Amino acid sequence: MKLQLAIDLLNKEEAVKLAQEVEDFVDIVEIGTPIVINEGLPSVKLMRESLNNAQVLADLKIMDAAGYEVSQAVDFGADIVTILGVAEDSSIKSAIEEAHKNGKELLVDMIAVQNLEKRAIELDEMGADYIAVHTGYDLQAEGQSPLESLRTVKSVIKNSKVAVAGGIKPETIKSVADENPDLIIVGGGIANAENPREAAKYCRDVIDGK
Amino acid sequence: MKLQLAIDLLNKEEAVKLAQEVEDFVDIVEIGTPIVINEGLPSVKLMRESLNNAQVLADLKIMDAAGYEVSQAVDFGADIVTILGVAEDSSIKSAIEEAHKNGKELLVDMIAVQNLEKRAIELDEMGADYIAVHTGYDLQAEGQSPLESLRTVKSVIKNSKVAVAGGIKPETIKSVADENPDLIIVGGGIANAENPREAAKYCRDVIDGK
Repeated sequence: MKLQLAIDLLNKEEAVKLAQEVEDFVDIVEIGTPIVINEGLPSVKLMRESLNNAQVLADLKIMDAAGYEVSQAVDFGADIVTILGVAEDSSIKSAIEEAHKNGKELLVDMIAVQNLEKRAIELDEMGADYIAVHTGYDLQAEGQSPLESLRTVKSVIKNSKVAVAGGIKPETIKSVADENPDLIIVGGGIANAENPREAAKYCRDVIDGK
Repeated sequence: MKLQLAIDLLNKEEAVKLAQEVEDFVDIVEIGTPIVINEGLPSVKLMRESLNNAQVLADLKIMDAAGYEVSQAVDFGADIVTILGVAEDSSIKSAIEEAHKNGKELLVDMIAVQNLEKRAIELDEMGADYIAVHTGYDLQAEGQSPLESLRTVKSVIKNSKVAVAGGIKPETIKSVADENPDLIIVGGGIANAENPREAAKYCRDVIDGK
């Protein structure tokens, strides 16, 4: 089981500082969509150049011109790039193709997908590396959580790895880890903790079953 | 009927140069998603500061954290911001609220929406300023066009304005203008023309019925 830190609400220099602080305990550092929108792909490049072993995920939430967008993200150093599960099949396929051509991975974000089971089966067949169930900020505000969606997706996929995101914190990560996803994504639960390094270590320990 | 130039595949300085060249003939200049991803919102700011009368649209294709993203785009000078029609209702509503609070407009991009008629009715009721039918790059490559979708949306909305995008060129704009949308979005048809100013003037003349 891998742990990903999602960084959404900082500038790229602060994001690097946070990532370096917790790198010992996380497998993947995500440059979140808000940072990409605010500062562009140079934020991904800076993160890649600033980390040692952790992978860098660029949360582009691609919707169109998918092959091009993946190639750009890869050029700027991304190891994993995200596309939306609601995107057209042709976009998903060209994104997967472009990522794999470069030895990189594609994560499909299932946010706002209406028929999770059907779409997960399709994405699994298309060759998505990760399928991520994701309760976004705007639905977290309505009290929703991604656990049931995680079970649904996990029960139907054969080759893809399953990731889970949406409001997961040190206090709640045990219940998520118990479902045995391949990747758990934690954002504010680490980034906004009083001691982010401690919060990341705690999440790591839970994931490692300590 | 308004005319929008969508600029996708340049850097922000080249985008400004192109926009200034054609500003006499267009109502709205769009900073396309690829520019936002590559360079971030400073590209929107530079465009806003470089134009006189044309509005600036930031094609963020928002999917989550919608109120925050709209406020960021507005801070950087956007007059119109885009959100995806496939986004959750809670995201669309907070985006509309944030845009209107600032006296700005929201355009909902219908790319990959499966039930256009149903979604258009919902978005119209939520108060979307523009509903944009949009055949993306990846489906244009499969030979699709947005004209039929335009008719579908136009037939059901009451208050929203309707926009149309996707591979429209000087050679084809007459057939689009004949459908009488509120906004026609042209990208490569102007940007990649041998003489972009002439192409923009031609599009303007068609729209004005000259």
